[in-house]
Amino acid sequence: MKKTLTTRAADYNQWYLDVIEAADLAEHSDVKGAMVIKPYGYAIWERMQKILDERIKEHGVQNAYFPLLIPKSFLTKEASHVEGFAKECAVVTHYRLKMALDGKSVIVDPEAKLEEELIIRPTSETVMYSTFSRWIKSWRDLPLQINQWANVMRWEMRTRLFLRTSEFLWQEGHTAHATYDEAEAEARWALSMYEDFTRDVLAMSVVPGMKTESEKFAGADHTFTIEAMMQDGKALQAGTSHNLGQNFAKAFEVKFLGKENTEEYVYQTSWGVSTRMIGGLIMSHSDDDGLVLPPRIAPHQVVIIPIYKTDEERVAVEAAAHSIAQSLKAETMWEEKVRVHVDTRDNKSFGEKTYEWLKKGVPVRIEIGPRDVANNSCMMMRRDRFGKNPIELGVAVEEALKYLILIQHDLLEANMQNRLTRTHHVDSYDELKSKIEEGGFFLTHWCGDNACEKKVKEELKATTRCIPLAQENEEGTCVVCSKPSQRRVIFARAY
Amino acid sequence: MKKTLTTRAADYNQWYLDVIEAADLAEHSDVKGAMVIKPYGYAIWERMQKILDERIKEHGVQNAYFPLLIPKSFLTKEASHVEGFAKECAVVTHYRLKMALDGKSVIVDPEAKLEEELIIRPTSETVMYSTFSRWIKSWRDLPLQINQWANVMRWEMRTRLFLRTSEFLWQEGHTAHATYDEAEAEARWALSMYEDFTRDVLAMSVVPGMKTESEKFAGADHTFTIEAMMQDGKALQAGTSHNLGQNFAKAFEVKFLGKENTEEYVYQTSWGVSTRMIGGLIMSHSDDDGLVLPPRIAPHQVVIIPIYKTDEERVAVEAAAHSIAQSLKAETMWEEKVRVHVDTRDNKSFGEKTYEWLKKGVPVRIEIGPRDVANNSCMMMRRDRFGKNPIELGVAVEEALKYLILIQHDLLEANMQNRLTRTHHVDSYDELKSKIEEGGFFLTHWCGDNACEKKVKEELKATTRCIPLAQENEEGTCVVCSKPSQRRVIFARAY
Repeated sequence: MKKTLTTRAADYNQWYLDVIEAADLAEHSDVKGAMVIKPYGYAIWERMQKILDERIKEHGVQNAYFPLLIPKSFLTKEASHVEGFAKECAVVTHYRLKMALDGKSVIVDPEAKLEEELIIRPTSETVMYSTFSRWIKSWRDLPLQINQWANVMRWEMRTRLFLRTSEFLWQEGHTAHATYDEAEAEARWALSMYEDFTRDVLAMSVVPGMKTESEKFAGADHTFTIEAMMQDGKALQAGTSHNLGQNFAKAFEVKFLGKENTEEYVYQTSWGVSTRMIGGLIMSHSDDDGLVLPPRIAPHQVVIIPIYKTDEERVAVEAAAHSIAQSLKAETMWEEKVRVHVDTRDNKSFGEKTYEWLKKGVPVRIEIGPRDVANNSCMMMRRDRFGKNPIELGVAVEEALKYLILIQHDLLEANMQNRLTRTHHVDSYDELKSKIEEGGFFLTHWCGDNACEKKVKEELKATTRCIPLAQENEEGTCVVCSKPSQRRVIFARAY
Repeated sequence: MKKTLTTRAADYNQWYLDVIEAADLAEHSDVKGAMVIKPYGYAIWERMQKILDERIKEHGVQNAYFPLLIPKSFLTKEASHVEGFAKECAVVTHYRLKMALDGKSVIVDPEAKLEEELIIRPTSETVMYSTFSRWIKSWRDLPLQINQWANVMRWEMRTRLFLRTSEFLWQEGHTAHATYDEAEAEARWALSMYEDFTRDVLAMSVVPGMKTESEKFAGADHTFTIEAMMQDGKALQAGTSHNLGQNFAKAFEVKFLGKENTEEYVYQTSWGVSTRMIGGLIMSHSDDDGLVLPPRIAPHQVVIIPIYKTDEERVAVEAAAHSIAQSLKAETMWEEKVRVHVDTRDNKSFGEKTYEWLKKGVPVRIEIGPRDVANNSCMMMRRDRFGKNPIELGVAVEEALKYLILIQHDLLEANMQNRLTRTHHVDSYDELKSKIEEGGFFLTHWCGDNACEKKVKEELKATTRCIPLAQENEEGTCVVCSKPSQRRVIFARAY
């Protein structure tokens, strides 16, 4: 482990990997393309799961579990879906190994070949909707709202921890409705649920918008997205929600008998966020010292470190530390108990502990030594600011709570400022070309033609991130071909 | 859906499947060997996860996530492990599909063949311990206590919902320790954690014991198990815990520098319970009307059904129903909020609702009609008893809570009685042979020889379930070969 991290200015990509290593979040595994999510990284994922799961269930969606393996033929049932997903996926061809003749190694048993190959799910539309076609008979069975927490796999040659790995964890919501309007409302509900979550919990200010035809989900009628901006000005797609129309319903015969006794295809949606969000979280707030976590997502919101030399001192400072911890744990913040940890390990020095929690991004750090106890005070530090603040013990709990609120607020503010400062209205291709290198979101007019989008992608390595939902119609001309355009799209380089 | 279930007396196996269908817990999927866990079945699994996860974390174990795919060569590193697991597993040989010449179907791209085949994890010892060897350097890194919630796959030709499916969900704990004694204590802690959980939460009275050599986990030094008895007298292994000794440590080079500066192999444990436990739960308590759930595991502990004909009546009875629900929801039982549901659906009749919640095993059902409201009372039903009990509204909350405690208690009592009544001390092979057909646990002397075990398995279709931990040394002779034996083992037919 290196003692200091690569700085963002020196090498942003290496800095990202250094933050992950320093905070002990994840690592590459012995299996190409797959990562190990280490306990601290997994604890962040569990926090995301808990909060999202509550919101999803509050909306009336129920969790269920569908098979990992999908028959190959399922993928081809929805014509455009196969184009988007069939290509890079793990294929199971056999179901048995046997001992090799050397008696030590194992080989694939050629007699155990599957009649039809099975695919490890890259997403579950096909396997779920073939089931939905049995579950849904009449309008009384609608809406059907199902969510699944699962692992999925999309083969990747060039991987990047959290952002791009062959296997990742996610939540995928799948719903079926009687009308197009209900499905559209559900897709928009999911989008705003994700927007609220990233803003209020992850302190990430995102742009909700619609994907262009070429960037939408394979098989969707249209795709909504929330696009976040990282500190280097690059975009990160943080969550998507698809109005699938009747495309999959027709492919998988998901029909219902309506109130008028006529048989109709259902209208569907799907929506998901994944462990990729942890990558976005890291790149949104962290600094050259390591991870910075917003209090609402942090596994530990407050860490208290006792400082002592003698056993006698230890007794006194640990008593003071536990006393603050007990009082803090009794407090409720954002409808959850405050999460406090007292670091009483005796195989680490005070300096090692301080450095460790700094790198792990704990929002509030409290240090208490013998002199502090004598003075009836402690030192309180905000992870997102420099400086140590002496605080009277009597108001330590109150102050710590105040700090949590301030940090949550200030991180969102800084994240939003970064995005707003680096969002530019650009009206010519030359301007786009000259500015793209410095990063940021570029709001440009675009005619809607795929050829223009492709040109920007090839020449400037920037893609359309979304057509922002919050904009007025505005007459303009496409930055590429000068044809008329009614609204702006965001071009940006992206993770 | 059949209107009534097959009775246990008529066909126990069909009854089991009928209960699952009637309670809407799970179904076979389009993929051979894989099941779909439906929302109500998954809600039971989430309840199990929540309670187990809390207990596992309280013990100091941290959750993490490891790769789904394991290199084939990993399986052969621990010699006896491969014997037990290599045979029936899903093998990934390719990582890409491509469009077939017909332009409609997809085929496996022969150019995308993996250099080394990957196996879908049947269990994660190998992939985890190859990682542990990097994580563990010194005694300061021990104990390492990791748990994973994951899907695993063991190919099955003859499947049975929950009890035996190719893919299943589970929790697998994996720990590493500096000494054999610590590992042994950890394996015993896991066993007693499972025993407490099955007894106190699932109301299942199990026998904790040790597996014989032939039945132990492939690669373990020894295996602990809890064995439950189903209503038909057959055994079900409900959870296992393995002391792995240094077997895997040596295979995967998991070493640490001890306090004396000498390098040593760690001592390891692994332990797990799976969705199979839901099958055991179903067969422990359910009756010919359908599922019966102990209150501590039930997704809904109390369901209130309003009865009405007119809109005016509806307003009055629903107000009374919601009033009880609100009061009940404010109560805490077994350290959790009481889970109450008011069934206000207007597309189902009162009779349909009653029957549905009966089949779903909801512990307490409350019915309120206009006459009840007028009389300031309601009807209360226990799922595990016949009869309707008129209860004054003023004491409905208090009575419902009392019912929950009684049901939890009585289900455990009945389950234990079934096990005790059907547990027999048997001292001759002829007696074992004559009684085995009627089901039950048979405590017999056994010399410890694998040949004797094998004879019983082949001739009587019964296996050694465990050597019970709670027994005194007792001189006797093996029921098969008459050689001396010091203690008894349980023989039984099993799921």
